[in-house]
Amino acid sequence: MNKAILIIQCPDQKGIVAHISDFLYKYQGNILEVDQHVDEEIGMFFMRAAWELESFGLHKDEIRPSFEKEVAVKFGMKFDLYFNFPKPRMALFVSKLSHCLFDILSRVYSGQFDVDIPLVISNHMDLQGVVKAFNIPFYHLPVDKSNKTEVEQQQIALLKEFNVDFIVLARYMQILSSDFINQYPNQVINIHHSFLPAFVGAKPYHAAYERGVKIIGATAHYVTEELDAGPIIEQEVARVRHHNTPSDLVQIGQDVEKVVLSKAIKYHLDRKVLAYGNKTIIFY
Amino acid sequence: MNKAILIIQCPDQKGIVAHISDFLYKYQGNILEVDQHVDEEIGMFFMRAAWELESFGLHKDEIRPSFEKEVAVKFGMKFDLYFNFPKPRMALFVSKLSHCLFDILSRVYSGQFDVDIPLVISNHMDLQGVVKAFNIPFYHLPVDKSNKTEVEQQQIALLKEFNVDFIVLARYMQILSSDFINQYPNQVINIHHSFLPAFVGAKPYHAAYERGVKIIGATAHYVTEELDAGPIIEQEVARVRHHNTPSDLVQIGQDVEKVVLSKAIKYHLDRKVLAYGNKTIIFY
Amino acid sequence: MNKAILIIQCPDQKGIVAHISDFLYKYQGNILEVDQHVDEEIGMFFMRAAWELESFGLHKDEIRPSFEKEVAVKFGMKFDLYFNFPKPRMALFVSKLSHCLFDILSRVYSGQFDVDIPLVISNHMDLQGVVKAFNIPFYHLPVDKSNKTEVEQQQIALLKEFNVDFIVLARYMQILSSDFINQYPNQVINIHHSFLPAFVGAKPYHAAYERGVKIIGATAHYVTEELDAGPIIEQEVARVRHHNTPSDLVQIGQDVEKVVLSKAIKYHLDRKVLAYGNKTIIFY
Amino acid sequence: MNKAILIIQCPDQKGIVAHISDFLYKYQGNILEVDQHVDEEIGMFFMRAAWELESFGLHKDEIRPSFEKEVAVKFGMKFDLYFNFPKPRMALFVSKLSHCLFDILSRVYSGQFDVDIPLVISNHMDLQGVVKAFNIPFYHLPVDKSNKTEVEQQQIALLKEFNVDFIVLARYMQILSSDFINQYPNQVINIHHSFLPAFVGAKPYHAAYERGVKIIGATAHYVTEELDAGPIIEQEVARVRHHNTPSDLVQIGQDVEKVVLSKAIKYHLDRKVLAYGNKTIIFY
Repeated sequence: MNKAILIIQCPDQKGIVAHISDFLYKYQGNILEVDQHVDEEIGMFFMRAAWELESFGLHKDEIRPSFEKEVAVKFGMKFDLYFNFPKPRMALFVSKLSHCLFDILSRVYSGQFDVDIPLVISNHMDLQGVVKAFNIPFYHLPVDKSNKTEVEQQQIALLKEFNVDFIVLARYMQILSSDFINQYPNQVINIHHSFLPAFVGAKPYHAAYERGVKIIGATAHYVTEELDAGPIIEQEVARVRHHNTPSDLVQIGQDVEKVVLSKAIKYHLDRKVLAYGNKTIIFY
Repeated sequence: MNKAILIIQCPDQKGIVAHISDFLYKYQGNILEVDQHVDEEIGMFFMRAAWELESFGLHKDEIRPSFEKEVAVKFGMKFDLYFNFPKPRMALFVSKLSHCLFDILSRVYSGQFDVDIPLVISNHMDLQGVVKAFNIPFYHLPVDKSNKTEVEQQQIALLKEFNVDFIVLARYMQILSSDFINQYPNQVINIHHSFLPAFVGAKPYHAAYERGVKIIGATAHYVTEELDAGPIIEQEVARVRHHNTPSDLVQIGQDVEKVVLSKAIKYHLDRKVLAYGNKTIIFY
Repeated sequence: MNKAILIIQCPDQKGIVAHISDFLYKYQGNILEVDQHVDEEIGMFFMRAAWELESFGLHKDEIRPSFEKEVAVKFGMKFDLYFNFPKPRMALFVSKLSHCLFDILSRVYSGQFDVDIPLVISNHMDLQGVVKAFNIPFYHLPVDKSNKTEVEQQQIALLKEFNVDFIVLARYMQILSSDFINQYPNQVINIHHSFLPAFVGAKPYHAAYERGVKIIGATAHYVTEELDAGPIIEQEVARVRHHNTPSDLVQIGQDVEKVVLSKAIKYHLDRKVLAYGNKTIIFY
Repeated sequence: MNKAILIIQCPDQKGIVAHISDFLYKYQGNILEVDQHVDEEIGMFFMRAAWELESFGLHKDEIRPSFEKEVAVKFGMKFDLYFNFPKPRMALFVSKLSHCLFDILSRVYSGQFDVDIPLVISNHMDLQGVVKAFNIPFYHLPVDKSNKTEVEQQQIALLKEFNVDFIVLARYMQILSSDFINQYPNQVINIHHSFLPAFVGAKPYHAAYERGVKIIGATAHYVTEELDAGPIIEQEVARVRHHNTPSDLVQIGQDVEKVVLSKAIKYHLDRKVLAYGNKTIIFY
């Protein structure tokens, strides 16, 4: 079913919902999903509405200008309008670990993710075979200190060539530069293998082991300039015990990582995430 | 802050949200919370809206007739209108176990539950001291096969005398008759000490132990005529291991029971539960 | 590292641990893991001990007769002796759903499962491509009412031909006959897509939806003659809400199923499961 | 049932378990619980064994010297010997929040905690009524910058006067000095209202809100000189959403705090915790 999805933000005030719902009703919109949120601390209103496109009284291309004129302008709204077609195009960045890659590919295979993966980029060759088995182009771009800027330019050229909409770092073990990140604001999803903000940076499972925590976790977030500090999309945890070694934690954690990352991708694909400030609103 | 809360149900159709939000906007309602749900299987629309009463353009007593005339009648709506004052009046039924009772009383003490408890009824004397320490009247009404009908009449007389709005069975180990239950539809909350529908009936922890489950649970539900089969309000679980004895399960389970029951009470107090058919919608 | 693993059961009595640890000490066993359990209800003692084989004072083939003579006979012990080599041989039975299959294959790929998969058997063709991509022989044996006995004979012939040690039903949607099961006692692992004993049998997610539960689950168990009633190896749950449709439950549940099944396989591979009566002991 | 409990630590080496179990067998010890742990990183062996005292071949007072001479000295063991009588004596320190206090008192009431509470110390009067209702002496010792040292001396004098074995800070909102803490090493249990090491220090729920985490937690730990950095005994978490305000987090978190703190107290009471370095081993 073809859907339109509207994501709105504006200062909170009376009448917002009335005007939006009047607009959708006026054009005979068959509302499929709607969720709103008021952040009283900052006085902001947020909303997501999805409706059936086929029976709607406005053509796909008329929606944006009509909504702008009839509603948005009255309330000083910022809004994004999405459609669930064509499929979004997702690039995967990987290194050596396969668990997140497999989890993502298996969801594409089963139809759970409605997405195209035009390419996978890796700084290592290890996962080439897996990627090829799924008939996805694999680009091997090794990175070291000397060539990082140049490689990022190659990566960005590929992303543009393949019309990529967003990027998933599926345990890609390189830090992207600010230059790269700023070209894809809230469009680069990373999985960090700790329960942020605990254990930022490298080797979080070893740090968790040293601290003697009883629970470990994983965090999917949008990448921003500050390492592991971007808006959190999803987190999950697993219980560990004193007898678990660091490598046990790695194994236990991988089950958490792959599920968390895939949930974050699903939210992003379904246009259910609104990043505002350094937080996310996850609409139902 | 004085609030009005509207809970609505009607067949799904276009324009419902527009009409409701127009109504609230027309009278300058400052909306505090709103959540809706469409059950596509049965074609029903459900909504909860809460707004500030003070600045609202209709008097408390005018809201019901105005909403009926201006909105509800158009869509064949059933609705309930609540106010968050005066405090709801909750009766507690207990037997011998104290963990749920303490948990509830401690939340009343700390102000987390905005409720009056005019009386506690028990078929045993064990918890009289606890109840008295909180300055709540305690009624000891022992039950056996011979006097059950009579005792229920006494209980109902007390509930009416004290203007009780709803009843919480906080590990009350007697089954209420249909006659009793039918006088309080969706107003009697029970905690069952299993993850329903597993282990209906007596001694669920022993049954769980016998079955060798790896997880146990508890279920808060509205009481209906069929034992442990009413609409589920909340559930939670805890992990157990092979070395846990039945009495370990009882201990582990009690922590789950008290938290689940108190969550269900909180949802009920906040008018966030809508029981429809044999299910509940829990609004945010 | 080559390991020996001893799994013991006997009536509980004084001196068991002393005799077992004396035995291991006498032959200079470097103990790697040990865990014991006493079931006081039935008066039984259970133990698992793993030690390094290289430095052990008895040859691989002498351990069984020596332990029998020096320890087991005194206490009326039943015991199993395992080695972590050669790799166990696991057959997978699948139908159409791919999530558990992918999860298992990805763990074999990454080295998390130290197992050989000599063949996959399916009653449908759907997953042939996936299986082939991993270079595993795929046998398509369609089943209907008329040919069930015959197909099971073919399956058993294949299992014997390939020297299969145990079988995993990775969402295989056929019920195996008692004849089949009795040839592989506690060697057939099934994943049931509910939190057993709730929702035995077909379409558990739909049943969970109808009942309005707030939590769904999955259960990995050894298959016995009675449907979905065998010893439970592992269970896990996920929270759902009133807005989740049956097909949402299917999606949410699949993430639970694959993790639970893979955990059960890992326990089984590591010889950490002892099925006793209708329960399992999961050793650390 | 009268029990002896032995907690052992020593460098890992062959024969430890054999010698310990021979010792217990020699004196006809009826072993009730035993659990061991080898930390391979640091080459240390840890064990907890509990046995019935009545039928044991050594008198209560002979156990320590006999075990020292017959076993401990051979392996360079450090060990603690405990008995489950008389009841341990626990002091509670509280401030204004009641949820942990109620939870602890209700477990003492129901017999889940086998402990004496000779006194409650608070820097505020708020909880005096609750404490009195349980017939426990309440000491009001207000603290400010000027009198902290003096008040701690009064506290310690009271702890000594009442023969207190260990102290529970049940949301006591003052930081204890090193002098105080060093007198009770691994005998002061604190509940910190975050998932440590995230959000050390004051106002962790507000910090969690600001960071936009999707899960909050609580941590029970032994107090050491470094703030919120002592050995973790237990942790638990709860899921939150973007619509939860800081005060929602406080409410949600309190349910986690009280359960985590009470679990930690239970482990401590049952002598199931061994703090080693900055970690804990929690024996089964």
